Amino acid sequence: MQGVLDIPSELESLQEVIADAFPSVIEVFEQQLVSDLPPVDEMCKYIERYRGKMLRPTLVLLCGIAANDQHAQMIESDNTSTLCTHAHIVCGAVCEMVHMATLVHDDVLDEAEIRRRGQTLNMLHGNETSVILGDYLIASAYELCSTLDSPVPSRIVGNASAVMCTGELLQLQHRDNHSLDEATYLEILERKTAALIGAACELGALCTLGFDQREHPITQSLLRFGRALGIAFQIQDDVLDLMGNEDQVGKSVGKDLEKGKLTYPLIHHLAHADEQQTIRSLELIRQAAEHDQSGIPELIEAIGSTGSIDATQSLASSYVDRAKSALIELPESPGRSMLDLIADAVISRSY
Amino acid sequence: MQGVLDIPSELESLQEVIADAFPSVIEVFEQQLVSDLPPVDEMCKYIERYRGKMLRPTLVLLCGIAANDQHAQMIESDNTSTLCTHAHIVCGAVCEMVHMATLVHDDVLDEAEIRRRGQTLNMLHGNETSVILGDYLIASAYELCSTLDSPVPSRIVGNASAVMCTGELLQLQHRDNHSLDEATYLEILERKTAALIGAACELGALCTLGFDQREHPITQSLLRFGRALGIAFQIQDDVLDLMGNEDQVGKSVGKDLEKGKLTYPLIHHLAHADEQQTIRSLELIRQAAEHDQSGIPELIEAIGSTGSIDATQSLASSYVDRAKSALIELPESPGRSMLDLIADAVISRSY
Repeated sequence: MQGVLDIPSELESLQEVIADAFPSVIEVFEQQLVSDLPPVDEMCKYIERYRGKMLRPTLVLLCGIAANDQHAQMIESDNTSTLCTHAHIVCGAVCEMVHMATLVHDDVLDEAEIRRRGQTLNMLHGNETSVILGDYLIASAYELCSTLDSPVPSRIVGNASAVMCTGELLQLQHRDNHSLDEATYLEILERKTAALIGAACELGALCTLGFDQREHPITQSLLRFGRALGIAFQIQDDVLDLMGNEDQVGKSVGKDLEKGKLTYPLIHHLAHADEQQTIRSLELIRQAAEHDQSGIPELIEAIGSTGSIDATQSLASSYVDRAKSALIELPESPGRSMLDLIADAVISRSY
Repeated sequence: MQGVLDIPSELESLQEVIADAFPSVIEVFEQQLVSDLPPVDEMCKYIERYRGKMLRPTLVLLCGIAANDQHAQMIESDNTSTLCTHAHIVCGAVCEMVHMATLVHDDVLDEAEIRRRGQTLNMLHGNETSVILGDYLIASAYELCSTLDSPVPSRIVGNASAVMCTGELLQLQHRDNHSLDEATYLEILERKTAALIGAACELGALCTLGFDQREHPITQSLLRFGRALGIAFQIQDDVLDLMGNEDQVGKSVGKDLEKGKLTYPLIHHLAHADEQQTIRSLELIRQAAEHDQSGIPELIEAIGSTGSIDATQSLASSYVDRAKSALIELPESPGRSMLDLIADAVISRSY
C-alpha cells in the first residue's frame, strides 16, 4: 500500500519500522505453507505472486503502532523493536493468507484468467486443484493463528471468514438482479470485504493492548476505521473492475458485469436514467453478461451522463471520511497520520 | 455409528451416555450455523441431512470417556454428567462440521449428484454456492473451536484440515495414474481421512485430560487408534464406491473410477493380473473414466479373480488390528470395549 503513498518526511521513520517488519511477515507466511509435497509447495510459491498491496498486514502493523501511545517516543529514540511483536507479524500473515484463499476461490468462481499480470491458478491447474488449494490456505491460516497463546485471534479470524462467506452468498443470491438497491450493495461489501479489513485493524490493536481488550475504545475505533475503509476499498475495486485498464489493474476486468454483479456506478445509474436510457443500459448489461464486452464503453458513457461516476466517488469518499473520523478518538500520532494517508490512498489508486 | 453396532448388555449404559450427549452436539452444531440471511440458513439446514454416521463426534465423546480412568465407576453410579463436558460437545460438533465442509467441496469436485439419498447441494444450487457454503462451514467450524479457552484445539483442527487438503492434492496429482502404488495410496488415505479422525480421538482425550496433555500416553494411544481406524474406514469407503449399491450406500457410487482415482482393490488387481487381463482391465478402467459404467461388473469379477477383494479386506483388517492394539495401553474399560466394537464395525458396514 505504501507504494501509492506520498509519505511526508515526518512519517519516514514510521514507514521504515513497517518496512523493516515486512520481511518477517513474509517469512512467517512462507514458513507456514511449506509442504513436504513438492507440487503443493510449488503452487504455494506460485500464488505468492498474488501478494500485492499487502493492505491487511500493513493495517495490522500500523494499527498496532497507532494503539501504542508510547510509539512516537519509541520511534524517535529508535527503540522500535517492541512495536511490531511476533503476534503482530503472525496476525499480519494470517490476514493476508485468508485474503489470498478468497482470491484463489474467487478466481475459480469468476473464471478469471489473469491475476497480478500472470495466469490464475485455475487456468494453470484447473478448478479442482484451485478449490483445494484455497482450502489449504484457509486451513493453514487458522493453524498459524492458533499458534498464538490466546484463542481470541482465532475467534476474530474465524468469525470474519464466516461473515465473508455470507457476503459472497448474498452477492450470488443477487446475481442478475438489475434492481439491486444501495443498501443491499453496501451490506454485501460490509460482509465480503469490510469484515476482514476490520478484523486486521482490530487484531493490530489487540496485539498491542492485550487480547482481552476488545472493548477498549482504541480497539473499537480501529475496528470502525477498518470496516469503513474496507467499504471504500471495495467501492474503488468495483470501479476499477468496470472502468480500469487490465494492464494497469493487473487482473481480469469486466468480471462483475460478466458475472451479473451490479456495482454502485450501475446501481446509481439505473436509479437515475430515464426510461429509454434504462432500457438501453440493461441491454448493454445483459450483453456484457454474455461475455461480449463491446458495449462497455457506451455503458461507461451512459453512467457518466447520469452523474453516477461522481456519485460513486462521493460514496467512496464518505466512507473514507467515516474511517478517518473513527480515528479522532486516538491521540494524534504518526501512526494515526499514516492511517489517514492510507484511507485517502485507498480510493485514489488505479490498481 | 452405533446403529451398526451390536451392543452387548454391559455396554448399554455407556451407549446411553453417548446417546444423551448427541442432542447437545447437534444443538451446538446448528446454533453455530444460524445466519441472519435466510438462504444461508436454509442451505445449512439442507446439508444437515448429510449428517450420517456421526463417526467423528462419537469418537470425540467415546475417546473422552475412555481417557477418564474413573469412568466405569461414574457410569455405574449414574454420575455421568461430567463425562461429556462442554468441550467434548464443542469438539464433536467442530469435527463434524469440518467433515461436512469437505463433503460439500468433494461433491463439487466429484460432480456428485446424490448424497444421503437426496440431491447434492451442487446439483441444487450450483458449484459456486457449494464452494462458498463449504468455506462457510469450515470458517464456522474454526470460529466454534476458538470459543474454547485454549488455542490447542484450534491448532489441532487447523493442522488436520491443512493435512486433509494435502491428501486431496496428492490424490489429484495421481489422477489417471494407473500404476499408483500401495504406499502412495495409503499416504493419500492417511492425509485425507485419517488426519481428521485421529484429531477427533486426540481432542476427545485432551478434553478429558487437559489441553496441555498432548504427550500423555493415553492421548498418544487414542491418536494412533484414530489414525489407524481412519485408514480402515477409508479403505472400506473405497470398496463401497467400487462395489456398493447406490441405494444402500446412499450416495453416488463409481465416482472414484469416473474421476480416475485408483483404489486398493484395483491397485492390487493390476499388480497381480497377467498381461492380457491387465490390458483388458485398463480398458475397462478407462471406459469407466469416460462415464460408461457398463464394464464395472466385468471389472469387479476380474478383481475377484486375482484375490484382490480378499486382499483389500485383509488390508483393512490389518488397520483395524493396528487400531485395537493402540488401545492396549489404556486400562480395560467399557469405553475401550466400545472403541474396539467401533473399529470392527468400520469395515463390516455396507453404507
